[in-house]
Amino acid sequence: MTAPAAEDTGAAVTALVNGTPAAGISSLDRGLHFGDGVFETIACLQGRPRFLSLHLERLAHGCRALGFAPPAGEMLRAEIERLASRQERSIVKLIVTRGPALVRGYAVSGHEQATRVTIRYPWPVEDPILQQHGVSVRVAAMPLGENPALAGLKHCNRLEQILARGEPSAAATTEALLLSRSGKLISGIMTNVFLVDGPPQSPRLRTPVIDLCGVAGVMRRVVLREAARAGIAATECYLWPADLACATEIFLTNARVGIWPVGRLEERTLTPGPVTRRLQSLLQPLLEEPVDG
Amino acid sequence: MTAPAAEDTGAAVTALVNGTPAAGISSLDRGLHFGDGVFETIACLQGRPRFLSLHLERLAHGCRALGFAPPAGEMLRAEIERLASRQERSIVKLIVTRGPALVRGYAVSGHEQATRVTIRYPWPVEDPILQQHGVSVRVAAMPLGENPALAGLKHCNRLEQILARGEPSAAATTEALLLSRSGKLISGIMTNVFLVDGPPQSPRLRTPVIDLCGVAGVMRRVVLREAARAGIAATECYLWPADLACATEIFLTNARVGIWPVGRLEERTLTPGPVTRRLQSLLQPLLEEPVDG
Repeated sequence: MTAPAAEDTGAAVTALVNGTPAAGISSLDRGLHFGDGVFETIACLQGRPRFLSLHLERLAHGCRALGFAPPAGEMLRAEIERLASRQERSIVKLIVTRGPALVRGYAVSGHEQATRVTIRYPWPVEDPILQQHGVSVRVAAMPLGENPALAGLKHCNRLEQILARGEPSAAATTEALLLSRSGKLISGIMTNVFLVDGPPQSPRLRTPVIDLCGVAGVMRRVVLREAARAGIAATECYLWPADLACATEIFLTNARVGIWPVGRLEERTLTPGPVTRRLQSLLQPLLEEPVDG
Repeated sequence: MTAPAAEDTGAAVTALVNGTPAAGISSLDRGLHFGDGVFETIACLQGRPRFLSLHLERLAHGCRALGFAPPAGEMLRAEIERLASRQERSIVKLIVTRGPALVRGYAVSGHEQATRVTIRYPWPVEDPILQQHGVSVRVAAMPLGENPALAGLKHCNRLEQILARGEPSAAATTEALLLSRSGKLISGIMTNVFLVDGPPQSPRLRTPVIDLCGVAGVMRRVVLREAARAGIAATECYLWPADLACATEIFLTNARVGIWPVGRLEERTLTPGPVTRRLQSLLQPLLEEPVDG
């Protein structure tokens, strides 16, 4: 994977830079210098990107929150669709940075031209049992710093996620839950998290509000929307480790996997329950086709 | 500055990638994807880098803290010296990332090969009155998130600094002081900060301890060392906005400027005082020559 191939050589990884097959970006790019950008990881099925409008909407919001104009959505859409169309299934990652630096240092001139990097990866081999029996999850040792100005954005400052992913206890689990500096439950490293509790006849579905840190995931948004449509009460609020302990069902979401039930959390075994199963059923038709919105 | 020139064309900015004149880096580099790296900004005088051993020591510590092996120090030294030697004065920025990704996502294979990007910039035009009369400083509106695992490192996750630098009130000031999420004084955006208080016959010199967030600057280290050698009691501790209000002298440090007295903090005017002046005098011989350590 070290040398991205020119487009359409059949190699595993293919990259476009500003719409052109290219191996590299400028060494002056602020994405390299500062992680000054945002990204999306888009599941592509039947040669087409899934939930693309939701991804592009979040990306544009992220660019504006960082103070630069997002590239035209139609151009991004065309580049992503072009890469996706050459494979039945793939993952397309889009990175948009503020662009090459026009001045040295943190200051922005305001005339930077955003850089678009679009990379196609093979769809990973995955174990279907994860969807069925659930994944094994730990709680990461490292808490996330809290900064409301960056919360929700899928920005390119990801050292915290890299360090959490590299903790010694990571090998035995599929995912880790992250707490914030003030002790709140935020998300997984590459997933969002939902908890179910309350009596079986009126279960309560909750997910951490993403206002201090963490990423507001596209699949999190889809699950909240589909739950609401199905009449399942879902709320975004502050949650704590004690809420994890009380939850009768826990599941994780991300754009590729949809819903992963949690089958094990540290020493505790959980059984995927009726709310998780119902939401998996509701999502299934949306995940099997490259639905746009 | 958008197109880094091949080496020695006389253009303003010159870049080496892994020791070779090059315009770009791999679009798979983890520096681009995640800000997964560290950097140094090195002042070069008389064609030679200043405090290079201190910069390389911090860089190596940063790589190890992020979990990857730093490139050989002698190789980095040679590349920096090579770029510096072609100009009387310049700024050389060294970025070391974990390298091109070998797997998709946050996980690290452990076999990544670090990427070295070495860029020479012109020495900036600066107003000598800043050293003499002091700089105008505000307190940034945005607090820094706190994460001890990253504190002290000059890593490439710098969106907080970019946002603080871009605050609407930035135009009227040279620098902004940053508080952390728990309200502690941490540093400037591109400087460290020192406060002087206490009676004139036994002044107290203090600087924020860098254990929650912020960068442990090379010039901060030099000032602490030179102060100690001169018998000026200096401590690293938690400091708060109230300590700013009580300080009789405030000064800022960074590797290029040495010491900037603060001449104005928000609405308050300060006069550079005897401790600041003494430290400026102590540092002067170290700053005028390309001292190594």
